[in-house]
Amino acid sequence: MKQWVYLQNEFVDATKAVLPVTDLSINRGYGVFDFIRTQNHQPVFLQDHINRFYASADAMHLIVPEAKEKLIEIINLLCEKNKIPSSGIRITLTGGESADGYSLTNPNLIITQQPLELPPSEKFNAGLKLITHQHQRQLSHVKTIDYLMAIWLQPLLKEKQADDILYHQNGLVTECPRSNFYIINKDDSIVTPSENILHGVTRKNLLKLDNHFKIKEGKITLDDIKNAKSAFISSTSKIVLPVMQVDDVVFKEHEIVKDIKNAFCTSYNLNA
Amino acid sequence: MKQWVYLQNEFVDATKAVLPVTDLSINRGYGVFDFIRTQNHQPVFLQDHINRFYASADAMHLIVPEAKEKLIEIINLLCEKNKIPSSGIRITLTGGESADGYSLTNPNLIITQQPLELPPSEKFNAGLKLITHQHQRQLSHVKTIDYLMAIWLQPLLKEKQADDILYHQNGLVTECPRSNFYIINKDDSIVTPSENILHGVTRKNLLKLDNHFKIKEGKITLDDIKNAKSAFISSTSKIVLPVMQVDDVVFKEHEIVKDIKNAFCTSYNLNA
Repeated sequence: MKQWVYLQNEFVDATKAVLPVTDLSINRGYGVFDFIRTQNHQPVFLQDHINRFYASADAMHLIVPEAKEKLIEIINLLCEKNKIPSSGIRITLTGGESADGYSLTNPNLIITQQPLELPPSEKFNAGLKLITHQHQRQLSHVKTIDYLMAIWLQPLLKEKQADDILYHQNGLVTECPRSNFYIINKDDSIVTPSENILHGVTRKNLLKLDNHFKIKEGKITLDDIKNAKSAFISSTSKIVLPVMQVDDVVFKEHEIVKDIKNAFCTSYNLNA
Repeated sequence: MKQWVYLQNEFVDATKAVLPVTDLSINRGYGVFDFIRTQNHQPVFLQDHINRFYASADAMHLIVPEAKEKLIEIINLLCEKNKIPSSGIRITLTGGESADGYSLTNPNLIITQQPLELPPSEKFNAGLKLITHQHQRQLSHVKTIDYLMAIWLQPLLKEKQADDILYHQNGLVTECPRSNFYIINKDDSIVTPSENILHGVTRKNLLKLDNHFKIKEGKITLDDIKNAKSAFISSTSKIVLPVMQVDDVVFKEHEIVKDIKNAFCTSYNLNA
């Protein structure tokens, strides 16, 4: 079935969605994006994602060519045209076509949509194996397109038979490339880093549930992981997934992560 | 006049040179490039640039779809077709069109050519004003497309009426976003940083001229700049340009930089 992409100011056939090679994303890795999940054809936490997208653009000196309300209309129209019940919608804003290949100019706006299912229960039960890597994302509070380090580390992940990277800077843990990180201490209190990270939308809404569990922002060191009872990640595409291993530290318990996920999905009317 | 671009395996009209929006450069800022200057229709230091381009691709787990000899043939053919005597040729290799927007796949190769003149003598005489900024480029030895910080700092440059950025990490100077940095000490010895930088082709060939001047690789701190007699930068597109100011430190002498440029241009048969 034909898939549609919104490009600049029109809907185009996905196979024809292209950018000139003079675009600053291609030449200088310059752009921002956001990623929204849909369930039953409806975007989840749409307003949060839209707000973050405009904040990212603003932080990067880029002007979104549409007002927020109009962008939401376009996204809803894209959902109607593509008819994909469970999907991921990516809104990207690039640096635009720069004559000198360096100066900022009018950004290019691209909205794509692809089928996306939540991880199956086997994946949840198996949990993730993470390996740590010393790295600090530049402009970490902005959702830029800079995933150079994450992509570059893929062969290492394969070699170590790991699922993902956990970044730290001098032993202070920050985040995974596409998700936020949490530990559960022996007293069942949940901690997630607050500095030098991207503030995830799932994370933001999870932190609101402090009437359900003891959850707070704070510092996590690599040593704290050794002393933790359990760990997990949160993201738009995975909601919540248990972490079973960080380097040589193995966690055995993840029932509590299931409780967290259930409380989250119930609170926000999400299919688990 | 019609301009040609080499895209994947054919020459196309520059206005039609496009990449699918699924390319990893657009989605994840993942790619490498190199930049070659031509004078009198001839590429300068071509073999050095080709070698670095293949080394960059290799470091980023990307395979150049052509052998070195074939790539040189293509570049020469592009020069013949475009007929631009003084130009800049950019070879870009992106992460390719990734189905999941994350996994490495077959890279896309793009070669563009645009008119490029060396800076006029007024620009040389005026010299550059640099402002320092604490930042370390990731995978600094690789010529990746990651110029996020450099582009992001453009409004600051404008505000400070400066020409370019000089990166340092905790006071240890590295490089400018698109050029290498040198100081000239009071004893006329020239020093350029050797670690955590991109090893420029002009820099490499300048270091070879140690029979002409006292030049060596070494550490430069922000304090060393205060004690220096003069400073300059080198790059493919500018050869050598004097630096007249770094933050509040003003240099008055730049005759010696003219001597360096002349010795370089004479040694390698370049138009000054």
